[in-house]
Amino acid sequence: MGSGPEFDLVRRMVARWGDLAANIGSDAGRVELPAGEQAVASTDSAIEGVHFKRQWLSPREIARRATVAALSDLAAAAVTPRAVLLALGLPEELRDVVEEIADGVGAAVREAGPHARIIGGDLTRSPHLVLGLTVIGSGAQPLGRAGARPGDAIYVTGVLGGPQQAIEAWERGDVPTAWARDRFAAPRARIAEALWLRERGAVAAIDISDGLSSELAHLAAASGCEFRIDVTRIPRPAGISWQSAVRGGEEYELVVVVRGDLDVDAFARAFGVPLTRIGVVRASEVGRVIATEDGARVDLPGGHDHFSR
Amino acid sequence: MGSGPEFDLVRRMVARWGDLAANIGSDAGRVELPAGEQAVASTDSAIEGVHFKRQWLSPREIARRATVAALSDLAAAAVTPRAVLLALGLPEELRDVVEEIADGVGAAVREAGPHARIIGGDLTRSPHLVLGLTVIGSGAQPLGRAGARPGDAIYVTGVLGGPQQAIEAWERGDVPTAWARDRFAAPRARIAEALWLRERGAVAAIDISDGLSSELAHLAAASGCEFRIDVTRIPRPAGISWQSAVRGGEEYELVVVVRGDLDVDAFARAFGVPLTRIGVVRASEVGRVIATEDGARVDLPGGHDHFSR
Repeated sequence: MGSGPEFDLVRRMVARWGDLAANIGSDAGRVELPAGEQAVASTDSAIEGVHFKRQWLSPREIARRATVAALSDLAAAAVTPRAVLLALGLPEELRDVVEEIADGVGAAVREAGPHARIIGGDLTRSPHLVLGLTVIGSGAQPLGRAGARPGDAIYVTGVLGGPQQAIEAWERGDVPTAWARDRFAAPRARIAEALWLRERGAVAAIDISDGLSSELAHLAAASGCEFRIDVTRIPRPAGISWQSAVRGGEEYELVVVVRGDLDVDAFARAFGVPLTRIGVVRASEVGRVIATEDGARVDLPGGHDHFSR
Repeated sequence: MGSGPEFDLVRRMVARWGDLAANIGSDAGRVELPAGEQAVASTDSAIEGVHFKRQWLSPREIARRATVAALSDLAAAAVTPRAVLLALGLPEELRDVVEEIADGVGAAVREAGPHARIIGGDLTRSPHLVLGLTVIGSGAQPLGRAGARPGDAIYVTGVLGGPQQAIEAWERGDVPTAWARDRFAAPRARIAEALWLRERGAVAAIDISDGLSSELAHLAAASGCEFRIDVTRIPRPAGISWQSAVRGGEEYELVVVVRGDLDVDAFARAFGVPLTRIGVVRASEVGRVIATEDGARVDLPGGHDHFSR
C-alpha cells in the first residue's frame, strides 16, 4: 500500500483485523473456494438516515450490523462464508472512529465461522456514512427460495418483534427495552444454524430482512405452493402482537422449509435460540400465504419496502 | 420477487438487462466459475458529490463509468469477469431514470466479455446517488502488483490526461473538449487488453484509478524494485503536460510490467489504443520510482487521495 491519508485509514483498519484480513492492498482480492463447491455472492448497503441513525447506535454496532445483514444472505443459502469486501463511505468527522468501524466488521466476520476473510474493499469520502458489504460463500448445494413441496413444515428461528419495537421507541423519543435494542443493534447471521438445518432436511430458506410476512410471500411465490401459517405460533415475547412481529424487518432470523422430522429441542440446545414450527406447505395452483388464528382466516400485514411511504 | 415499489424498480432494471442478468431475486446469486481457476473479487463505490456531479454526466454515463471502474480492477488482475453485483442507493427524484442507470451498468458488463453476468444487488433509498459495484472474476493465475524483476519493461495503455482535463474544465465553469469529456464519461475496462498482455509476458499490473504517479509507487513498493520512468515517453495529447498526465486519476488505463519482448504495434492494431513503453525496472534495495526527463532527475507529482485536501 502507498502513502497518504486514505491508505493510513486503510492501514488502521487492517491493523484491527489482524488475521481476519487477507491480501488487502491489491486491486482484486483472492477468494479461496474449495474445489467442487458452488460459489454464491450477495451485496447489502447500510446508509445513514435510511437504515440507521448515528445517534441510535455506536459506530461499532452500525458496522457489525451492516456486516451481519450481508452475511445473513449467506445463511439463507446455507453456505459457508469465505470472503467479505467492505465499501466504506466515510464522512470527515468519522475518521476518528475508523477503528471502531473496523472492529464492528471484524466481529461479524469472526462470528461467521473460521473460513471467512476480509479480502478487499474501497474507502472514500462521503457526505453520509455508507457501508456496502459484499459477501461470498460456497457450499455443495446452496439453498434457494424455491423447493418447498406440499407436506413440508415451515420453521422460523429466534424470537421476532425486537427491531421494530426498538425503532418505534426511538421514533417516539423513548428508550427501547434492553432486549429490543439488542435485537436491533446486535443481530446474528444464522450461519451455523443454517448449516445444521441444511443437514437435517431444509429445502428452502430466506432471511427476514423485510419482515416475516413478505419473506413468506417470497417463498410461497418461488415454490408455487400455499404456505399455511398459524399466527398464534409466531415466536414473540409477551407484549408484542403477532401483527407487529410479522411486519417488522431487519430481524436476520431465518424462515426455513423442512422436509421430514426435526428435533427443535436439539436446535435450541445447540444454538441457544428457539426454532419454532409456524406452519405447513400445501398444494396450490398459485403461490400464496394463508394465515389463520384459532382456525379463522386473518390477513398478514405487509412487510417493509424501502420505497413505500 | 414480491410486490411493492422496491421490487417494481428492480424488475424495471432486470427487464433492461435481459440475458445479462442471471438469478436476480434470490438472497445470494450464483457465481459460475470454471474448475481449477482462482477467483478474485473487488468492490468500488461511486458517490455523488465525491466521484461525480450529476450535472456533468447522464445517469447512464454515471452508471457505466462506476461499473467500468470496478471491472478495471479485474483487468489489472488479468482475469475473466464472471459476476457483477450492484448496490444502488437511489434518491427519490431519480426513480424515473432507473432504466438509464440499468443501461449504463449493462453496457459496461456487456463490454466486459461474454462470461460476465449481473447476479444480484441491493436497492435502497438514499439522500445521494450511490453506486456500489462488486465484481468477481477468475483466471488460472491472476496478476498482482508484485512480481517485477530487474530488466522488465514498464508499459502503459492508452493516452493519459483526459479525465483530469475534463474535471478542471468543469470546475472552471468551462466545457471540456470532446476528447477529454469522453475519457472521463466513457472509460473502458481494459479486460481484453489485459488478457492479451497476460499471454505475452505480463508479470504485474495495476489500473490507473488514482494517477499514474501513485500507481507506479504501488507497483515499485510491492515488487521492491526501482521503477525508472522516462517522463517524455508518457502518452498524452498535445497541450497536456506530463505533470498533468501523471497526476490525474480515473483513467482506468493499465500500467503493466512485462518480461520479454512485446509487439506494441500488434497491440494497437488489436485494440485501437496505443501501448507505450515508459520505463524499465532496475534492482534496488527499496521499492521506489525514479523519473527522468532528457536524462535529468525530476519529481513526479503525487496522485489523487480521497482524504487529502
